[in-house]
Amino acid sequence: MSSYGRYHSQSYAPSAPSLPGSGYGQVSSSSGYTSFPPGTHPDVIRSFQAVDRDRSGFIDEKELQQALSSGFQKFDLRTIRLLMFLFKNPNEPLRIGPQEFAALWSCLGHWRAIFERYDKDRSGKIDPLELRDALYGIGYAVPASVLQLLISKYGDGSGRRVELGFDSFVECGMILKGLTDKFKEKDTRYTGSATLSYDTFMSMVIPFLVSYD
Amino acid sequence: MSSYGRYHSQSYAPSAPSLPGSGYGQVSSSSGYTSFPPGTHPDVIRSFQAVDRDRSGFIDEKELQQALSSGFQKFDLRTIRLLMFLFKNPNEPLRIGPQEFAALWSCLGHWRAIFERYDKDRSGKIDPLELRDALYGIGYAVPASVLQLLISKYGDGSGRRVELGFDSFVECGMILKGLTDKFKEKDTRYTGSATLSYDTFMSMVIPFLVSYD
Ligand SMILES: [Ca+2]
Ligand SMILES: [Ca+2]
Repeated sequence: MSSYGRYHSQSYAPSAPSLPGSGYGQVSSSSGYTSFPPGTHPDVIRSFQAVDRDRSGFIDEKELQQALSSGFQKFDLRTIRLLMFLFKNPNEPLRIGPQEFAALWSCLGHWRAIFERYDKDRSGKIDPLELRDALYGIGYAVPASVLQLLISKYGDGSGRRVELGFDSFVECGMILKGLTDKFKEKDTRYTGSATLSYDTFMSMVIPFLVSYD
Repeated sequence: MSSYGRYHSQSYAPSAPSLPGSGYGQVSSSSGYTSFPPGTHPDVIRSFQAVDRDRSGFIDEKELQQALSSGFQKFDLRTIRLLMFLFKNPNEPLRIGPQEFAALWSCLGHWRAIFERYDKDRSGKIDPLELRDALYGIGYAVPASVLQLLISKYGDGSGRRVELGFDSFVECGMILKGLTDKFKEKDTRYTGSATLSYDTFMSMVIPFLVSYD
């Protein structure tokens, strides 16, 4: 039995975010953003357009950061860079278009709901136990030692208890989910181990190494 | 035959850095830094003492950055955090003492020599081909696809040719060397593949995910 072996039947595809407002609908082709998927929430399109000032149809990492941050909560650029790398078209430079933006927005809505469900003490932060429960709740039984190793990277070095804001929570969550999913792909019989070639191993890992200039 | 399978007989232990000045010697115990290894170069001790202002015997990441940066070349804090994480005592918080500092200094001297040897055009930067040659020269035949994936994380997103300064070169080098060494530990018969449990896989990878507040 593998240690991540608690699967839910729920699909883990990005689900629609809970957004304020109503009025879902097809985007007019006259907007110039015809490449948003049909049914994209107007807020998502507005958000993209607000930061894509030159109307190039693509946004860079700074613009993405602006689109995802609010006056009271700024997304860390490190998290932005990881999101960009995970969502962008692999053949494109570091920028994302409407389709990827819609997928990213939807995925973040999903994580936001998880964050709120598992922030039991309503502190606005996720502590290590809440993180463990959150991951378990979505079907990932991550060993305590692994969680501890990851969380230790988010401290300020003081040894004080680490609590994750939404951006770090998304980052941790996507790294753990992403690496686990890649591992599971290679562990087709769910034995808890997998045989990997060196090239495969390296190619699985490198996308999760976050870097920026 | 594994793709990393070009081993040199040379030991890859951190070698002594080439430092200006002479006068190696035992450190006086009256300095309060008795825990530097015997024979530590006085420059190393001076460098540590210059940043450990409160004489606690430990330095944090900002102090390490100061110790490794010079007026004309600043070490990126991301690289510092990786170095800290790879060299610190795993049971300590994010700080390093004299022994770890001496080991780190020595290791950086080693990488500096490699950097200079493989910066063929003397541009002061390492381009992707020079990086490939440098890694090959120290016994790591990293596949082009893996190198390309890693290097793509160091660009500014413009698609322009990436060149690595010394800090990014050290970071790339330590990540590739570190992950490869960990993989080789599991590939005891040098077949080019290894069977890993999920926990092992995650624990191998997470130390190389760089994070900071
Ligand atoms: Ca909480
Ligand atoms: Ca060069």
